[in-house]
Amino acid sequence: MQKYLSNINSPSDLKSLKIDELVELCAEIREFLIDKCSQNPGHVGSSLGAVELTVALHYVFDAPYDKLVWDVGHQSYAHKIITGRRDKFSTNRKYGGISGFPKMSESEYDAFGGGHASVSISAALGMAVAAKMNGENRHVIAVIGDGSMTGGLAFEGLNNAGYIKPNMLVVLNDNNIAIDKSVGAIGRYLLKISTSPSYNKLKTNIWNLLGQNYFRKILQKLFHSVKLMILHRHNMFEALGFGYFGTFDGHDLPQLIKILEKLKLLNGPKLLHVITQKGKGFRPAEENQTDWHAPGKFNKNTGERIIVKSDKPQPLRYQDVFGKTIIELARQNSKIIGITPAMPTGCSLNLMMDEMPNRCFDVGIAEGHAVTFSAGLATMGLLPFCNIYSSFMQRAYDNIIHDVAIQKLNVVFCLDRGGLVGEDGSTHHGAYDLAYLRCIPNIIIASPMNEVELRNMMFTAQLPNKGCFAIRYPKGGGVITDWQLPFLEIPMAKARTICTGKDIAILSIGHAGNNVEQAIDMLNDKNISIAHYDMRFVKPLDVDLLHFVGKNFKKVITVENGTIVGGFGSAVSEFFAHYNHSSIQHKFLGIPDRFILHGSIAELQAECGFDTKGIADAIISMRQS
Amino acid sequence: MQKYLSNINSPSDLKSLKIDELVELCAEIREFLIDKCSQNPGHVGSSLGAVELTVALHYVFDAPYDKLVWDVGHQSYAHKIITGRRDKFSTNRKYGGISGFPKMSESEYDAFGGGHASVSISAALGMAVAAKMNGENRHVIAVIGDGSMTGGLAFEGLNNAGYIKPNMLVVLNDNNIAIDKSVGAIGRYLLKISTSPSYNKLKTNIWNLLGQNYFRKILQKLFHSVKLMILHRHNMFEALGFGYFGTFDGHDLPQLIKILEKLKLLNGPKLLHVITQKGKGFRPAEENQTDWHAPGKFNKNTGERIIVKSDKPQPLRYQDVFGKTIIELARQNSKIIGITPAMPTGCSLNLMMDEMPNRCFDVGIAEGHAVTFSAGLATMGLLPFCNIYSSFMQRAYDNIIHDVAIQKLNVVFCLDRGGLVGEDGSTHHGAYDLAYLRCIPNIIIASPMNEVELRNMMFTAQLPNKGCFAIRYPKGGGVITDWQLPFLEIPMAKARTICTGKDIAILSIGHAGNNVEQAIDMLNDKNISIAHYDMRFVKPLDVDLLHFVGKNFKKVITVENGTIVGGFGSAVSEFFAHYNHSSIQHKFLGIPDRFILHGSIAELQAECGFDTKGIADAIISMRQS
Repeated sequence: MQKYLSNINSPSDLKSLKIDELVELCAEIREFLIDKCSQNPGHVGSSLGAVELTVALHYVFDAPYDKLVWDVGHQSYAHKIITGRRDKFSTNRKYGGISGFPKMSESEYDAFGGGHASVSISAALGMAVAAKMNGENRHVIAVIGDGSMTGGLAFEGLNNAGYIKPNMLVVLNDNNIAIDKSVGAIGRYLLKISTSPSYNKLKTNIWNLLGQNYFRKILQKLFHSVKLMILHRHNMFEALGFGYFGTFDGHDLPQLIKILEKLKLLNGPKLLHVITQKGKGFRPAEENQTDWHAPGKFNKNTGERIIVKSDKPQPLRYQDVFGKTIIELARQNSKIIGITPAMPTGCSLNLMMDEMPNRCFDVGIAEGHAVTFSAGLATMGLLPFCNIYSSFMQRAYDNIIHDVAIQKLNVVFCLDRGGLVGEDGSTHHGAYDLAYLRCIPNIIIASPMNEVELRNMMFTAQLPNKGCFAIRYPKGGGVITDWQLPFLEIPMAKARTICTGKDIAILSIGHAGNNVEQAIDMLNDKNISIAHYDMRFVKPLDVDLLHFVGKNFKKVITVENGTIVGGFGSAVSEFFAHYNHSSIQHKFLGIPDRFILHGSIAELQAECGFDTKGIADAIISMRQS
Repeated sequence: MQKYLSNINSPSDLKSLKIDELVELCAEIREFLIDKCSQNPGHVGSSLGAVELTVALHYVFDAPYDKLVWDVGHQSYAHKIITGRRDKFSTNRKYGGISGFPKMSESEYDAFGGGHASVSISAALGMAVAAKMNGENRHVIAVIGDGSMTGGLAFEGLNNAGYIKPNMLVVLNDNNIAIDKSVGAIGRYLLKISTSPSYNKLKTNIWNLLGQNYFRKILQKLFHSVKLMILHRHNMFEALGFGYFGTFDGHDLPQLIKILEKLKLLNGPKLLHVITQKGKGFRPAEENQTDWHAPGKFNKNTGERIIVKSDKPQPLRYQDVFGKTIIELARQNSKIIGITPAMPTGCSLNLMMDEMPNRCFDVGIAEGHAVTFSAGLATMGLLPFCNIYSSFMQRAYDNIIHDVAIQKLNVVFCLDRGGLVGEDGSTHHGAYDLAYLRCIPNIIIASPMNEVELRNMMFTAQLPNKGCFAIRYPKGGGVITDWQLPFLEIPMAKARTICTGKDIAILSIGHAGNNVEQAIDMLNDKNISIAHYDMRFVKPLDVDLLHFVGKNFKKVITVENGTIVGGFGSAVSEFFAHYNHSSIQHKFLGIPDRFILHGSIAELQAECGFDTKGIADAIISMRQS
């Protein structure tokens, strides 16, 4: 029953509601979110936690003239619903539907798109500076979670904003959790200031004074010095030049509105620290915030998560193969250390953290640090397995080059979510890793076609002095249920022959090789003889095999779940050019040179043309050419 | 006259000296540095500022067992001199000589190599954690400048170290300058705490108490709470879990030694804040710290900088062409904004800063922020020219993809120092940019062969709606003195024909095209007809020209001042493969797949084989094949 929500088609519709009606609206939004997300999975936890904040921001400020920047952006569902996308919300994250993150191309209310963490302060600072230069009286607001505050980019933004001092508001949405529990000194610090009773009493007094209008002007002048004297002289954010206001209950809508209206009148950079609860209003999500970060489908009445079970055993997810294998290896090799930047459950390092807590480090959302910290460990003879999602590894690019590869340190990089990731869309696809890693000297890049291969690549990577060794695998499940076989070393730069043939050679890298196998099976064409090689390594390449292919084939197809610009196929074409294997017709299958939106992995692979059918079509078309 | 220095062959030789002898040693080191650097240029300013700190650290700690990590590393000359490299110091930064930065492969005393900023805390944390896991009682010390503290990576390191709380010491070497004057809120904050008299008095009292041995044990326990109560409750570093000790005079050797000896006894993460002066002890360098960051040759008696002047007018440096051109453009186009991360003089944006201070932003050492801040400006219709050295752009890789390219924002990236940079060596060569940028969709990548081309590329980039436009140019001078011609728009993806021919086609990108021209002139061979095309764009490629070359030539040489793995040559080979221009013999000239050390640009280009001779040799060998 939507008394208010059904009439909210833009933020201006909010403004005619009374405060108590807005409180009811929040309840309706929450119900709507739970209802929709129970059927169409999404990031329900963060969005439930930000309902009041969203309504308060849209009530007090005037988007799209005022600019609202959501950090990461998965907490923006309420924002989407009240900015004209309520009816489309059932298409959230679906192929052709609205994005699960803010997207400038989707709505004028999405002032900045996103998906990665810690971006909002820098972007908002740019907007605030531009507004000033353009002589506009716009308000610019960045909403950032405490998890994102561990990212160095957020600090760089604060540091620069506190120096330039434009009018802008940073709302620190502090729920003490990223996907897993927040870590880091700043998290401890935030907890300390939010739970200090004397501090909170003084805060209330200041606010009562500010409420009296005739005092405001005088107080505004005195404000900074008053606060410096009595309140929180060396508050960290004050130290960085921000006015600090906190902590407040982020679910108390009337209070939030009052505070935001006051802050609207204050000049300079301000930080509002609100405490919220991830999953607020839906008990199961409140109680297990990590599992309910993106829970999949669920029963909205019972809170039971709906997991489709199969009769026959299903292959594990690659991430779990990583998680289980690193424990096995770490039991044998005392030098192995597990590193993750805030993704213990996302990459399944949580399994090792449970068994060997002292040998695992969740360093927070801080990919650059994760890599350089790993480099430091490696200088002392330890062997870090640093697991970072492929698209987030873009954050640590210089660290890989400058701190690991140049120094030839033994660090194993496990790039989870390599290739298309599905519903998270363009910001999260791990499309570029093979290309951006391949140009780095001293690096080994491997990618497994199945679970046994991943397992053996991890085993091989931890053998002595392998240097900088990257293993890249996709989101989702493998193909083999019985994968926990004895470890075997994989010979360096040696491909696997999946099948031999003489008309067309298909060279694949990684799990996409299974699409090739299926395509060949599907065609089942006696008139064409297809060879299929699982290359295993993008760098170094299997030069013997490539010379063999160069000499014996005139038609080659490369297949990869990654960009065809500069990626694996490019490496093969470079090789053929270098060694004068000319007269080869070479078809590149993979992710084309454009940003791919969201949808299921199957839909997106089909769009890109390297699903089973796409590969079969390419074979047929090449046969005929 | 070296009374002490000539006997210092390793840090253990220091330990037998008395404190007043160490003070004299510092004077000798300073004299030695000034003498050597006057003849063989280097980063004399930072190293002069760190002499006492270096001697004190080596006196108190036991390297190489204790680990000393120098952030950036150009302040490490004194460290090099007293760790067995005194006699090799005249080869500093020379081809085949010692590196101007710490390098693990050069000395066991270089615990971690470097060149880029803000790395040291993360690396040292890795070492400290490893020492604890290995059950070793090593001390780990990171020495970091205030400039490097603006980098988000330093914050990520502090945040994680303050959480893990291992034994480690961060020495904040605060001289209030990076290369240009330090900017950012943290710089202001450091200045504030270092100049607070009440604070400094309290600090002295605490230290006096600590000096009394029998109090130490009790005090150590009480220390944290005592400081919390009276001293600096919410000091920013304390907030992040570090014990904070400062500020101290970084040139007062006896005091430094005393403090370090005390800190050696304290557990947990500690930050020692020392104030130093860049260029200390050499007046000209003290007085003009920016110019004396890396001054070239100079007269050590008069302080006069020795600039070799030529009778005929010399071409400007590309960076100055950028600096002068952006002013011209900004006068015409009010939307243009200049952005630099701490490199105003390095990239010559200082010229625009002088004329239009309100339209330029030095954001500090914070490349990621520089890019995302630019993205924020661009959302509001402004047009940022974000100038970042190629090798430092590796720091902002995700920001380019996630914040600019995906959102199709109009941001111009000027990548200075693209290609081999000479004496700064492997960490600073801009070798990978063409490869790592080329795989990004929605990006234009251009590179000028001369000053006029740079000028016109900048003009073209600021025309409406060009999107994400990268212009990449090298260190050093151009080839044309009379370059300030009227602006011309460069047609998108159109190459220039430098000369036509029919036997071999040479496709070059950027300034390296001049080597090609010279090679062709040098050969002056009537028996071979060479075509030379300046491609101008790596992305999008000039498809018409490439089809023409594909159809009309059997021999192609690509030339680039960048890696041949995934770079421009790779783009060309991809193109030929995509479009079935088979039977082409393709030779790739550029930076090979290994890290190139330091030396002059000419020496390094010769080593890589794309100097004039290398290109001529390639032509001859291809002609004969």
